[in-house]
Amino acid sequence: MNRKILLPESDIPTHWTNIVADMPNKPLPPLNPATGEPIGPEALAPLFPMELIKQEVSTEPDIEIPDEVRDIYSQWRPTPMFRAFGLEKALDTPAHIYYKYEGVSYAGSHKPNTAIPQAWYNKQEGIKRITTETGAGQWGSALSYACQLFGITCEVYMVRTSFDSKPYRKLLMNTWGAEVFSSPSTRTKAGRDILAKDPDCSGSLGIAISEAVEIAAQHDDAHYALGSVLNHVLLHQTIMGQEAKKQLEIAGEYPDVIIAPFGGGSNFAGLTFPFLRDNMRNGGKVRCVASEPASCPKLTRGVFRYDFGDTAGMTPLLPMYTLGHNFVPAPIHAGGLRYHGAGVVVSQLLKDKLIEAIAHPQKECFEAGILFAKTEGILPAPEATHGIATAIREANAAKESGESKVILLNLCGHGHFDLASYESFLTGKLEDHELTQAAIDASLAELDTPAS
Amino acid sequence: MNRKILLPESDIPTHWTNIVADMPNKPLPPLNPATGEPIGPEALAPLFPMELIKQEVSTEPDIEIPDEVRDIYSQWRPTPMFRAFGLEKALDTPAHIYYKYEGVSYAGSHKPNTAIPQAWYNKQEGIKRITTETGAGQWGSALSYACQLFGITCEVYMVRTSFDSKPYRKLLMNTWGAEVFSSPSTRTKAGRDILAKDPDCSGSLGIAISEAVEIAAQHDDAHYALGSVLNHVLLHQTIMGQEAKKQLEIAGEYPDVIIAPFGGGSNFAGLTFPFLRDNMRNGGKVRCVASEPASCPKLTRGVFRYDFGDTAGMTPLLPMYTLGHNFVPAPIHAGGLRYHGAGVVVSQLLKDKLIEAIAHPQKECFEAGILFAKTEGILPAPEATHGIATAIREANAAKESGESKVILLNLCGHGHFDLASYESFLTGKLEDHELTQAAIDASLAELDTPAS
Repeated sequence: MNRKILLPESDIPTHWTNIVADMPNKPLPPLNPATGEPIGPEALAPLFPMELIKQEVSTEPDIEIPDEVRDIYSQWRPTPMFRAFGLEKALDTPAHIYYKYEGVSYAGSHKPNTAIPQAWYNKQEGIKRITTETGAGQWGSALSYACQLFGITCEVYMVRTSFDSKPYRKLLMNTWGAEVFSSPSTRTKAGRDILAKDPDCSGSLGIAISEAVEIAAQHDDAHYALGSVLNHVLLHQTIMGQEAKKQLEIAGEYPDVIIAPFGGGSNFAGLTFPFLRDNMRNGGKVRCVASEPASCPKLTRGVFRYDFGDTAGMTPLLPMYTLGHNFVPAPIHAGGLRYHGAGVVVSQLLKDKLIEAIAHPQKECFEAGILFAKTEGILPAPEATHGIATAIREANAAKESGESKVILLNLCGHGHFDLASYESFLTGKLEDHELTQAAIDASLAELDTPAS
Repeated sequence: MNRKILLPESDIPTHWTNIVADMPNKPLPPLNPATGEPIGPEALAPLFPMELIKQEVSTEPDIEIPDEVRDIYSQWRPTPMFRAFGLEKALDTPAHIYYKYEGVSYAGSHKPNTAIPQAWYNKQEGIKRITTETGAGQWGSALSYACQLFGITCEVYMVRTSFDSKPYRKLLMNTWGAEVFSSPSTRTKAGRDILAKDPDCSGSLGIAISEAVEIAAQHDDAHYALGSVLNHVLLHQTIMGQEAKKQLEIAGEYPDVIIAPFGGGSNFAGLTFPFLRDNMRNGGKVRCVASEPASCPKLTRGVFRYDFGDTAGMTPLLPMYTLGHNFVPAPIHAGGLRYHGAGVVVSQLLKDKLIEAIAHPQKECFEAGILFAKTEGILPAPEATHGIATAIREANAAKESGESKVILLNLCGHGHFDLASYESFLTGKLEDHELTQAAIDASLAELDTPAS
């Protein structure tokens, strides 16, 4: 039995899977915050190329991937799938654990799957500059190289805590030609307003989004790009699940449960949606479990309602599970999971009980990450350790019940730029942060957006 | 035309290629420094398991790889080969450039190819502890995980400059369960003697080897492991070249020139020896070029003679191209290439003009590395940039002459833990160090070892 299951380049998917076509309840529309009315595609034109806006609102089941995008995907795709023999043995579980490994991409995560097409569609519209935000730096580095490939200038607003603590991610973006600014910055009104109130503000993804959106909206030749949350971003990631289906077929298996870390939802959506379509079309019963951090638990402790995607309130209102757009999560190391809301499509699926969610404290995640590194050799990103923690719980339950079970896990990235967080854990400095219900209630009480 | 050429796990080689069987002039024997007489295999028994000692002196053409080692190789092997379309386009060269990418291994380099069998053979002999040295940390991290897999304690002596400047490599070794000590340390007589003379000594590979050898020699249940230079280490790496031959066959090509960075020789040997055998057996004409740093130019400016492998003079005398075992190279960032001598087999091949060598200043290498990252997406390790620099010179020569040429390059590792050195380059702080002939002469004049 092989450890690795590889596919030839000819198996790189030709279409993205649009789960919206199969959803029993379609996502609610985004609203104009000023009028409370649904917004049309044209309202997004200052920020995104029209082809991506069409994808954002499409109900077509399958959307063709441009040839040039598939060609660039072939730099690292199809990504390998591994059977986790080492981890299974350490857990003494009857479960079969498989992981799809996205750390082989140039940026070391799944983010290039959407960075490449986003940059490509912008290039087709003649865009010269793309602005974006980044937390841990995964998304920013993925977009930097994508822009470099197409001769587009990339301007990254990096959350200040990460900017200060992760100089190497910043350097990687610089190496690929991007300009990186600490956010909040003095380059935008949004940033200046926040700095005026709090000069020491450590930043957040919501603030960085406000800054990137502001710059893009001001310039005709500039657009904005987001690394998760939006429908078209989730869509682009579905190549992971399509490849995974073929790879499990080669192994003669079908998953009982699929697990992925959850920040804005693209990683989770990318692996699960092609299987979820099987559930919807063919009565499949695969469980899809989103793993979120206990200190940013929008799926397990948030509410489903309209909220802004950013802190300054510059985006349309989106119907999502949210902790409130002013929610400031504890400074956990999984920076990519510190976002207040969940993508619209994933939120609707959770509301309709078609998917599940679970929250983990970060110490449990780092313990899981170290066990994984020792048994499988790959050092996972702090974000990825959340999925591993869930997989370990599922594998232990299988051992308890004596049940054989097939677990598919999204190992969405390596932790080569995150060793400072492992140091913190290994030296006993890493702490779990209790999140009180009062804190969540206080954040949600600030929301004056319409209920959904 | 595919960018990537992949092989199935069934194509992981079954035997290592022992070039010694085909060499017209066999390597000279190692000598006992006290007597000047050739040493027998038994003299190495306190340090190495007998199976590795047999490999060290074997003249068999092919040596079988144990099944369990092949099984562990399958965690990351066969490694991919890429056609460098992006780099070719940027250079506007008629040359076809292929690179074998070893950065997909758990440690991010080719080093696990020998770490796994070395740990495995030690396990078969009941060894409980393995000591080693590491410079940049590539070898130490490769061996740490290999020992972890077999329940062996790993003790790493890390050159002090790297220990202080590369905390993340150390953490990676800790994550895989190894103990890491800054060298020179107070744990050994060799370390204490050096610290007594120079408390601020920044360390060297030669000193760290002395420390690791001293500890291993003192304990019956402990052995020593080396990451390059020795015949059996070079032997284990030949799986790279065997895979590369098959991959180029799939592409319908055969190389005109093969290029690899050169530290102790294992990386270079691993890719070139299977092709070099073709040269020797079938009259092939492929050029094999070793890329070394201008500040540690043992192949291009050293002498061929007997020298110690370590600084304290604890190892047997080896017939090698050397700058003298007390040579202290400038503190360049490619820590893995800062070793005073070249492996015995490679030295003999160079003496017999069966291979070539070239030296590059480090600025040229970083420029090459940045171009590679921008065009191919992969950020190369500083060691790997040396091979890229040579490949660029070859590709430019092909453009000049209008000649089509097939170049095969060993991209031996990624630079995810080396971004501090890229920062130094990008901010203009990185300098080239001129190495005067007087400095080389002075180092060589200290040698009182027999000429070879």
